[in-house]
Amino acid sequence: MDLARSLREIVGADRLSVTDADRDLHAHDDSYNEPVRPDLVVWPRSTAEVAEIARLANETSTPITAWGAASSAGGHVIPVRRGIVMDFEQMNRIVEVDHANFQAVVQPGVLRLDLEDHLSRQGLFFAPDPGANATVGGMIANNAAGVRALKYGATRDNVLGLEVVLANGSIVRTGSRSIKQSSGYQLTQIFVGSEGTLGLVTEATLKLRPIPSHVATAIVGFPTVEAAAAAVADIMGLALEPAALELLAADHLRWMNEDEATSFAEVPTMLIEFTDASATSVEERMEAAISICRDHGAIEVGAVTDHAERANLWRVRHGVRHRYRRRLAGGAWIGMDVSVPVASFAELVSYAIASAEQNGFPGAVLGHAGDGNLHLGLGYPPGDDDARSRAHLVSGLLVDKAIELGGTCSGEHGIGLDKRGYMTAEHGRAAVEAMRAIKTALDPHNILNPEKVLPEP
Amino acid sequence: MDLARSLREIVGADRLSVTDADRDLHAHDDSYNEPVRPDLVVWPRSTAEVAEIARLANETSTPITAWGAASSAGGHVIPVRRGIVMDFEQMNRIVEVDHANFQAVVQPGVLRLDLEDHLSRQGLFFAPDPGANATVGGMIANNAAGVRALKYGATRDNVLGLEVVLANGSIVRTGSRSIKQSSGYQLTQIFVGSEGTLGLVTEATLKLRPIPSHVATAIVGFPTVEAAAAAVADIMGLALEPAALELLAADHLRWMNEDEATSFAEVPTMLIEFTDASATSVEERMEAAISICRDHGAIEVGAVTDHAERANLWRVRHGVRHRYRRRLAGGAWIGMDVSVPVASFAELVSYAIASAEQNGFPGAVLGHAGDGNLHLGLGYPPGDDDARSRAHLVSGLLVDKAIELGGTCSGEHGIGLDKRGYMTAEHGRAAVEAMRAIKTALDPHNILNPEKVLPEP
Repeated sequence: MDLARSLREIVGADRLSVTDADRDLHAHDDSYNEPVRPDLVVWPRSTAEVAEIARLANETSTPITAWGAASSAGGHVIPVRRGIVMDFEQMNRIVEVDHANFQAVVQPGVLRLDLEDHLSRQGLFFAPDPGANATVGGMIANNAAGVRALKYGATRDNVLGLEVVLANGSIVRTGSRSIKQSSGYQLTQIFVGSEGTLGLVTEATLKLRPIPSHVATAIVGFPTVEAAAAAVADIMGLALEPAALELLAADHLRWMNEDEATSFAEVPTMLIEFTDASATSVEERMEAAISICRDHGAIEVGAVTDHAERANLWRVRHGVRHRYRRRLAGGAWIGMDVSVPVASFAELVSYAIASAEQNGFPGAVLGHAGDGNLHLGLGYPPGDDDARSRAHLVSGLLVDKAIELGGTCSGEHGIGLDKRGYMTAEHGRAAVEAMRAIKTALDPHNILNPEKVLPEP
Repeated sequence: MDLARSLREIVGADRLSVTDADRDLHAHDDSYNEPVRPDLVVWPRSTAEVAEIARLANETSTPITAWGAASSAGGHVIPVRRGIVMDFEQMNRIVEVDHANFQAVVQPGVLRLDLEDHLSRQGLFFAPDPGANATVGGMIANNAAGVRALKYGATRDNVLGLEVVLANGSIVRTGSRSIKQSSGYQLTQIFVGSEGTLGLVTEATLKLRPIPSHVATAIVGFPTVEAAAAAVADIMGLALEPAALELLAADHLRWMNEDEATSFAEVPTMLIEFTDASATSVEERMEAAISICRDHGAIEVGAVTDHAERANLWRVRHGVRHRYRRRLAGGAWIGMDVSVPVASFAELVSYAIASAEQNGFPGAVLGHAGDGNLHLGLGYPPGDDDARSRAHLVSGLLVDKAIELGGTCSGEHGIGLDKRGYMTAEHGRAAVEAMRAIKTALDPHNILNPEKVLPEP
């Protein structure tokens, strides 16, 4: 194969593979979508190599799919048009930590937990936390968010600048080290969330935060999920600026108790967290939030500030994906993600539970509630096509409802393959055409992660 | 003129003008740049009219320059290629205030102070505050920022969605009412800061905040500007999250005392403000900040929390532009704006003062210091070409220095005409070409505010 030979000239024989094993490993992400094997996998080690590969692919109209940890939830990195998978595993350096300016420069392949480790020793953290041990490049591609986005924003809000290789191999630097900037088109934000369809991120300058000196966490049980969701809107309405407001249906607590022999109350539950440089401020806010929860009929309240106790509470939230999966017993699932204005969150939650139950799914709702961001697990047994159709039906109904409420088909998972069909409903034809014009301008031969994000023309 | 006849069919005779008076009024902004009169001025009243005008202009390759309050500081709205000025004065409605979600939908012509008035009666505010009574459309075009950006971000961070008419007349809706969104390319942020070169904003959904219940403001005098700048880096390094950290050279205080018979200490001064839902938190933070200032040799400290006293302190800052201008006695000036990482702010300030003084300008520095954003007034007498050249020299030196320090040629004023020449130095050729590709994709006939933002090809 000519392409393989040319690529081998760029990266050497060690960092290119056409074996079935390597192609299989790069054929799927963390979703139910059918795997598709790329023709080959390359592991670049430098921006110059990425640029050379891009030029070669562009000349030969060969698709390139950028690859991080494959933890995406919607088919984002499945190389549906085959070609090259570019695995950034070997570009995983933390290039610089600029403590004085709270910034770090990293390569895209660095894993979130490795970065967290490295930064925590200096009293700093990078705020986005999607749960999975994603790569920073993957988080940038999908604009990952997670539990801390409520206070600190999504990945988008924590990236100051990028180095990006375009489809034609040119190397673009976006943004600057200045927090404030009003200098031309905001290229950084065009690439963040573009899921590898507009360019290949080879370096990122990230905004860091000092680890807050005071943290208070509470676990609050409610009689119904709806009561909890209503409390969320009131807490947000008081502008207490919580760092996290997580909602969990009772099932998640029951599964936790079953799997880990804990004894959490098996009721709809909210996790509330405040962080601050002032202990008093944290306490005052938590008191106000808990008082709102009581007004909404909270039946169980436990508040802690100790680090180990807090970590223990957070296990309730962080393990949900694994516990849910374990119960699928080999079945597949759709991990739904939609987001609405927070005042409509309770309505969305009620609708989600009702639609799921009517179609035979337990109401495994879960939400970054303060952001109006709802997750719903829709699992189905292997080979059960009927259940599979019903899962897709519920998923579709939920997206329609979110859009009707002024929201979005994805708060944080991104579009990938799964949500392409909703882009026009959410954004309208003119906006999708504007996006397509940008895609065509930056990637005229459509080599970068083709058939993702934008719907069929 | 055929164009005038066609436009009259769209907006009627009342809302189109070819008079010299109206063309003169729409020939300049708030900068030293030479005025250029447009061929005609139109005042649309609806998105549909804007779209019809755009279609007509696109077919005839007629430039359109969008017009707000003309308070831009770099020639942004001067119609250098003549054609149509589209004045949004009559599209100034506050369409909706969504109190539950802290959002407002407004037309682009609404004036910042009118919006502030309207919102304050509901306990809300829109955070960006560039000083001038700009229109919201103009603030979006330039990504305006101001004193509160330190805590609340620039306009960019406070716009959730837009309605935009493209050059071809198609009407695009960007973003959603959901705070969190990961759904396709971030079109909103492509248009914010694009200075009317990519589309015509006809409606905006803004993020609001509740007016904080507790505010503390301090005025701190320092022996030197450099000492004050050094204190800034330390306050930011402690992550106290100030809402404002403004630096003023001694001249500004002297001019204030002269003009308003006040008795402020005529020394380099910092204004510090903290806002919060908790009184204790505000006090604790202010105490920590003042203690840092004392470590840097602060010689005067006054702290207030009373509303009237705070307003009085802020007069020191808010009037600087007028007081500076008054002293120019008919001369012109360059209102410089550059921004750097905050740890390099002190170095930038020292450099600015030295360069200005060496070239015969008093050191009228001023800064949104917590953001690393420095302003410097470079005034010159009418007809003094030598002083004018020296002003441009200092301005250029300061931009070079800011870029060298990892910063930007504009923190908040934007590019307009003045900074086009620095785009390649700051962003590199490849990034500028990527910006140009986007411009060409969205405005192929280059009708929208031509000869702005991007350098000559």
